[in-house]
Amino acid sequence: MKWSTRIGRLFGIDVYVHFTFLLLLAFLGFVTWQRTHDVYAALAGVAFILGLFGCVLLHEFGHALMARRYGIETRDITLLPIGGLARLERMPEHPLQELWVALAGPAVNVVIALVLYAGLAFTGGFLEATNLDVPFDLRAMLQRLMVVNVFLVLFNLLPAFPMDGGRVLRALLATKLGRRRATAIAANVGQAMAIVFGIVGFMSNPFLVFIAIFVYLGAQAEAGMVEMQSALEGLRVRDAMMTRFRTLGADDTLAKATDELLAGSQQDFPVIAEGAPVGILRRNDLVKALGQNRRDTPVSEVMCRECATAEAGSSLKRVVESMHERQCGTIPVVQAGQIVGLLTLENVSEMIMVNAALEQRGQALAHG
Amino acid sequence: MKWSTRIGRLFGIDVYVHFTFLLLLAFLGFVTWQRTHDVYAALAGVAFILGLFGCVLLHEFGHALMARRYGIETRDITLLPIGGLARLERMPEHPLQELWVALAGPAVNVVIALVLYAGLAFTGGFLEATNLDVPFDLRAMLQRLMVVNVFLVLFNLLPAFPMDGGRVLRALLATKLGRRRATAIAANVGQAMAIVFGIVGFMSNPFLVFIAIFVYLGAQAEAGMVEMQSALEGLRVRDAMMTRFRTLGADDTLAKATDELLAGSQQDFPVIAEGAPVGILRRNDLVKALGQNRRDTPVSEVMCRECATAEAGSSLKRVVESMHERQCGTIPVVQAGQIVGLLTLENVSEMIMVNAALEQRGQALAHG
Repeated sequence: MKWSTRIGRLFGIDVYVHFTFLLLLAFLGFVTWQRTHDVYAALAGVAFILGLFGCVLLHEFGHALMARRYGIETRDITLLPIGGLARLERMPEHPLQELWVALAGPAVNVVIALVLYAGLAFTGGFLEATNLDVPFDLRAMLQRLMVVNVFLVLFNLLPAFPMDGGRVLRALLATKLGRRRATAIAANVGQAMAIVFGIVGFMSNPFLVFIAIFVYLGAQAEAGMVEMQSALEGLRVRDAMMTRFRTLGADDTLAKATDELLAGSQQDFPVIAEGAPVGILRRNDLVKALGQNRRDTPVSEVMCRECATAEAGSSLKRVVESMHERQCGTIPVVQAGQIVGLLTLENVSEMIMVNAALEQRGQALAHG
Repeated sequence: MKWSTRIGRLFGIDVYVHFTFLLLLAFLGFVTWQRTHDVYAALAGVAFILGLFGCVLLHEFGHALMARRYGIETRDITLLPIGGLARLERMPEHPLQELWVALAGPAVNVVIALVLYAGLAFTGGFLEATNLDVPFDLRAMLQRLMVVNVFLVLFNLLPAFPMDGGRVLRALLATKLGRRRATAIAANVGQAMAIVFGIVGFMSNPFLVFIAIFVYLGAQAEAGMVEMQSALEGLRVRDAMMTRFRTLGADDTLAKATDELLAGSQQDFPVIAEGAPVGILRRNDLVKALGQNRRDTPVSEVMCRECATAEAGSSLKRVVESMHERQCGTIPVVQAGQIVGLLTLENVSEMIMVNAALEQRGQALAHG
């Protein structure tokens, strides 16, 4: 994620902290200091937030390690002021797998709360709620942490898709209704919850407003993703590929590529040697290279070589998923090693729009 | 603006109220009622907010009527919870004109405050500040309104471009440094102010957070716009037009247009009769028509006829401005009545990117 810095690696997963999170720590320390004029109180306040986000981090590892059991790796985990974010390579499509991955996060907080409960109970019992705000008392801090973990469990299990509880809801619905319908319902419930969060947050806590925005947009994006996946079901790459496009030769200069770029609508150009694609020259890479005085450089030095190709007969759904994963917007389509088309995410969504319009027409006829 | 409803027309300018503004009124009324359990207090609270936004509306008319003096019309005025927005057709490019248009808004609030001051002073003097929160006292309400107008003047004159004070700053800088440099500086100052607003708002008032976001993005957008205008200076339409594009005949069916759309990268197609453009078939219009069972309809029934054409030798800057104004992303380019190119905003920004990269290289050489 942009504006994040890596703080370490655990279980083979990189952990990042977002810049705004550090800002939050500094801000809370400052506010506590200003209120109490006591540096130690300020540090104790920061320590508590760090403890809290330690629990959030373990929560995210709960998701990540459960996903690993199902063969799904996690790209990274990022701590934001509004919580943690584990970026799984992909979401498990099987409902029961999604259920367990979603529950593994809150389960970690249940365990933490129980451990703290047992530890405090066996070493002298609990403090009154009114005595919890003492900044220097370790026991008071641990007891607050216990309470906060219970809160984390309850909050995360609210059915606000794509939060954990919302994923549980989707998984349960999906066993009966199928993934597409289940996601649509869970996303609607999630957006309704987000609106409630937003109103409550506006009256009480700005963080909740940001969580509300995150939930609302997240629900929309995931619902769109599932809609897209189901729209691609059964289609082949050749059904969505463009057949009218320009190519470059490996020895063509960037100057020539620039002319091609500006002459038409195409933004990324497959580079061809003997009829077979050897790379893709992307608009951004081209412009960057032009800024480095490389007008006469051959495109082969600037093109992206890692971009895979797709077979014309492959499953469109799987190819589009892998394009999303690699953040590759354009790939060449081949048949018997020769280029026969160009697949872009833009053109795929164009085809989905057209098909949806034609389907709508079909339904109107069926009803009419 | 989306989600807005028209409430009237004044001086020939439509006045809209955004849906969230009505929500705000309902919310404030409800909160007051909940606190006081007094319907009249709630209504008085709403009345005060209406009075306040009446002043905001007059402020916007200050801008609009001053702009009219310089021959610039205002498309509409919208009331949002964070203030008013007068959408001028264009901003005056002459610094002194921008200065007067920017100052005319706060000047209205100065006049309102003076009138209220005089009225209250001549009819019995002022209340103590501690007595101002009496909900039913008209004098108390008018005195609060006077104070709020003074606050509006001060707040609007903060140099938070694109707020009024920021426009004053840009206009003053532009007289010395030119518009491009002045805008870049004013936008940087504005974004710094927005960050301050954001932090202060986070600690005190959520509205200020929204104002901060509005100022930050507004500064970015205006700076980008001026950068673009200066990048287009001296260029002709033919310098930026695409020469490789597909056209449709007026009798072609939508089915054929769909094939063209999906076969390549182009999204909008000029429709040609005897070599001359007669309209543009836009992707959105095409998809909408497909949803209405019109695959066999000729494109001439669905194409946009209002889209102007541009002469290849015209000033690129002026043509791009008019495309932005009409929200037209694609127009045909003609010479002697025949189509010779296609101009899209996408391709124009592509050309700006390329030119900026080449210029950067030129500067590196000059320094090297």
